[in-house]
Amino acid sequence: MCRWIAYSGTPILLSQVLFRPEHSLIDQSLHSRLGVETTNGDGFGIGWYPGDTDTDTPAVLRDVGPAWNNRNLLEVAHHVRSGLFFAHIRASTGTAVQQTNCHPFRSGRWMWMHNGMISEFSRLRRDLALAVDPALYAGIEGSTDSELMFFLALTFGLTDDPPGAVARMAGLVETTGQAYGVPHPLQMTVAVTDGVRVWAFRYSSEGRSRSLYYSTRVETLRALHPDASFLRDVSDDTRLVVSEPLGTLPGAWNEVPESSHGIIQPGGDELHAFRPVPPGGPRPN
Amino acid sequence: MCRWIAYSGTPILLSQVLFRPEHSLIDQSLHSRLGVETTNGDGFGIGWYPGDTDTDTPAVLRDVGPAWNNRNLLEVAHHVRSGLFFAHIRASTGTAVQQTNCHPFRSGRWMWMHNGMISEFSRLRRDLALAVDPALYAGIEGSTDSELMFFLALTFGLTDDPPGAVARMAGLVETTGQAYGVPHPLQMTVAVTDGVRVWAFRYSSEGRSRSLYYSTRVETLRALHPDASFLRDVSDDTRLVVSEPLGTLPGAWNEVPESSHGIIQPGGDELHAFRPVPPGGPRPN
Amino acid sequence: MCRWIAYSGTPILLSQVLFRPEHSLIDQSLHSRLGVETTNGDGFGIGWYPGDTDTDTPAVLRDVGPAWNNRNLLEVAHHVRSGLFFAHIRASTGTAVQQTNCHPFRSGRWMWMHNGMISEFSRLRRDLALAVDPALYAGIEGSTDSELMFFLALTFGLTDDPPGAVARMAGLVETTGQAYGVPHPLQMTVAVTDGVRVWAFRYSSEGRSRSLYYSTRVETLRALHPDASFLRDVSDDTRLVVSEPLGTLPGAWNEVPESSHGIIQPGGDELHAFRPVPPGGPRPN
Amino acid sequence: MCRWIAYSGTPILLSQVLFRPEHSLIDQSLHSRLGVETTNGDGFGIGWYPGDTDTDTPAVLRDVGPAWNNRNLLEVAHHVRSGLFFAHIRASTGTAVQQTNCHPFRSGRWMWMHNGMISEFSRLRRDLALAVDPALYAGIEGSTDSELMFFLALTFGLTDDPPGAVARMAGLVETTGQAYGVPHPLQMTVAVTDGVRVWAFRYSSEGRSRSLYYSTRVETLRALHPDASFLRDVSDDTRLVVSEPLGTLPGAWNEVPESSHGIIQPGGDELHAFRPVPPGGPRPN
Repeated sequence: MCRWIAYSGTPILLSQVLFRPEHSLIDQSLHSRLGVETTNGDGFGIGWYPGDTDTDTPAVLRDVGPAWNNRNLLEVAHHVRSGLFFAHIRASTGTAVQQTNCHPFRSGRWMWMHNGMISEFSRLRRDLALAVDPALYAGIEGSTDSELMFFLALTFGLTDDPPGAVARMAGLVETTGQAYGVPHPLQMTVAVTDGVRVWAFRYSSEGRSRSLYYSTRVETLRALHPDASFLRDVSDDTRLVVSEPLGTLPGAWNEVPESSHGIIQPGGDELHAFRPVPPGGPRPN
Repeated sequence: MCRWIAYSGTPILLSQVLFRPEHSLIDQSLHSRLGVETTNGDGFGIGWYPGDTDTDTPAVLRDVGPAWNNRNLLEVAHHVRSGLFFAHIRASTGTAVQQTNCHPFRSGRWMWMHNGMISEFSRLRRDLALAVDPALYAGIEGSTDSELMFFLALTFGLTDDPPGAVARMAGLVETTGQAYGVPHPLQMTVAVTDGVRVWAFRYSSEGRSRSLYYSTRVETLRALHPDASFLRDVSDDTRLVVSEPLGTLPGAWNEVPESSHGIIQPGGDELHAFRPVPPGGPRPN
Repeated sequence: MCRWIAYSGTPILLSQVLFRPEHSLIDQSLHSRLGVETTNGDGFGIGWYPGDTDTDTPAVLRDVGPAWNNRNLLEVAHHVRSGLFFAHIRASTGTAVQQTNCHPFRSGRWMWMHNGMISEFSRLRRDLALAVDPALYAGIEGSTDSELMFFLALTFGLTDDPPGAVARMAGLVETTGQAYGVPHPLQMTVAVTDGVRVWAFRYSSEGRSRSLYYSTRVETLRALHPDASFLRDVSDDTRLVVSEPLGTLPGAWNEVPESSHGIIQPGGDELHAFRPVPPGGPRPN
Repeated sequence: MCRWIAYSGTPILLSQVLFRPEHSLIDQSLHSRLGVETTNGDGFGIGWYPGDTDTDTPAVLRDVGPAWNNRNLLEVAHHVRSGLFFAHIRASTGTAVQQTNCHPFRSGRWMWMHNGMISEFSRLRRDLALAVDPALYAGIEGSTDSELMFFLALTFGLTDDPPGAVARMAGLVETTGQAYGVPHPLQMTVAVTDGVRVWAFRYSSEGRSRSLYYSTRVETLRALHPDASFLRDVSDDTRLVVSEPLGTLPGAWNEVPESSHGIIQPGGDELHAFRPVPPGGPRPN
């Protein structure tokens, strides 16, 4: 399907994460190891917060060609630095290869990206679209399940309670899928951010979700690898969440458990269970 | 907005209509004379019927750049011949510049293209989308009013009764617009074809529709311009419908009247009044 | 590097070769088996002769994205038929991903496509460019070794004596490479056509050339596979030359020998040795 | 031809120059007033210095579509700030619409952009290309006169003495053109920068050069327009050089004289005469 990276921590040149690592996202676009498809060449996107006061929205750069040969991506990655950014490479599951189908999606300060799929989306699409808040509906620009999941999460209160909204979105997809007799309606890893915190979700109806990893605490890595100089340049709270590890540094990567979500935030990260909430169901707490 | 051309008649190289005339569609992409915008550089599309028995659908070539510098358009136009083809150049009224927003749109043997707009489309979009036949809904790939008008016409029986279906589509847009307090909801010139006949519509809520012209009968033109050699190469039933005249040959172009639709077909063309039919209203006859 | 296909025979829809086979060129763009790179996603091109009298040049359609997700390629391939066409998918070895670097290249009636490379091309490029006929020089539009090889072959008389011109081109590359101390200057499989005959070359300085196959005679295949119905639809003289086999039909594919070139033509194909002719050297005969 | 803008001064969001002004570069892409072509839709580019210590090269973003509908340009312009940047919109005079033909061109810390043309470039191209330093030749990626002028200027010492190198480049073009009987070989406005200073040139063989303007000193403008609040936000040394004025503020724009070049730099701008230096001619002083 797709591959993605979420970075939070010391402001760095985007290229240090996107191009430099041994198995960088660019390398994954050609040779993904853990993805369903080895090639992720149906568009890409990056979104970053500039970190100054004039602009409170992230910049989002998306294009329809492969990431591996895109010169504008190379330019921006080598000249823009940010302390919070998303990057995504796409392998289409059938929908058109167009900019509005590329991740991350944005709404105000918020960004969203997804790996996975809604099974038999073409059958469920209309019902799901009808559940989108009418005031938001006109903002749908593309034709992917991923964008619609974002609009549903926004409908269910994403900006107030991200885990609750994503749980309700997932619940609606499950319920709608079941109504249409779709065996395993939802497969997802999702990253969401408001520019301060990052929420990452791993879930699938069948309990065999797409791969997702988070990086080990920097202070632990420093103790394990006292010679790794780049670890000295980043702050203790620097963290990555990735579809697949960017390298082979022992001890650096940990699998996000099935049916769970994590929060990367100032003051301490969190890891919780994730369970869809069906329409009309109680809020999770 | 946009400019378009529909050709029906003797099979010719597409370039003879698209590139050769003094004020060809390519010239119109840079310097439209009668359009709302002088530049139509937000994508283009052509659709043609190959005219052999193996393929009963038209080929549709669309791209997001301007028509005037597109080499693939140049190549195809100079090497493909057809007796029935559409061509369209786009000036976006706000929606994304992407292939799925380019005309012509296709469904089976049918093609559709549009110049104009649904006013305040972002407010009406959801209601109109809900009126699309659920079985067709998943086929919506883009975000334009034009594509949605096509899907509504398909919903209302386009393939059985094109004028009736377009009248019901227009009626729904009018009614929906009125419900939202939109002064003049619809502005359109539309061309539709099934590969045999071509229907062309000119209508707007305010009664001041975008320009639309049809070519004079070839036999009449031959009498008027006995020296125009190209008129000898085309059959008597060759006909063009265009957003604006392709040249200045006196007597060659006739304005399609306000609120009317024409049919180009074997056995004799027709011209009729066009009036929207509101939801629940009687079929026009 | 790249993968290519040359077809000559009964006029067919391009899709029957490009999309239909089990291991079609489109499949090879994602999962090449015999290529240096598994992914060939840096642009593509097709060139075909329409087969009517008005147009004596081939149409060439090229684009910069991957072939596997290009809708215009899909459209043209399913609606255009030809008895002689080329198709090429590109994996850049460093030069820009742009239309003018995509194959096939064209000059008048002639088309050229290439898989392979000139080693250390950036060092040899200027000397090779200076050897191009000054009257042709201004026609160079891209930055690839492949296009320059075409212009050199044109300079050396490609349109009069294709094997001789390609031999002199290869000889110049060898000599120039040696002058710069490049170990193995040339690696190539090349296809050339004038719209009637197709010449295919397989050669490399090191004697380990990129893969190249030609299809077995249709009458032989019919005898081997009496149940393969598609073999009944094509004429006896239908022939394919391909970078890698399109399927696994036993007996269908034969390797083009090292350092050789073949000619597909009306009246009987030919296979000959190929040896570069250094500048000032005698014409091969 | 083309239109361009060079900005030097207080670091600002690029959008404040590219999108905000009444007759911004984006507006000029659709409706140029002083250009040879009203539409400049054949690609665009921006180049900016990030202004931090890690990256000493400018970022260059270029794309082949029109600037007016490019979302990535919009995103970058609204989220990136710089104290020295170039922007360019292109109207091709025949060469391919491809990224490598878009301005600005870059070499190390240096950027170059051009409006104008070398007359009958296809005839002069080879001779001019041969004059490029062989060590630089392989870096030529596109097919424009503009890029070749840049490589010639680099050959003639651009990084040591910009006015001298541009004069020698212009002299070579004049001499080469005369040798081929071309009446007025050169037409140019050129901007060059090393990230600290900006050199702007206005020259043409016929003495009727493309338009070029520079902005009035900020302190003077403040006195003229005490109510223009945005003038309070920029430093006294902020300066723009533009193909055509960005607005109608009286007293804000001054024509760069024919056959002259200016230098924008810390410590005081300069304006000098410009005269081509033929090959073998003395250095200007």
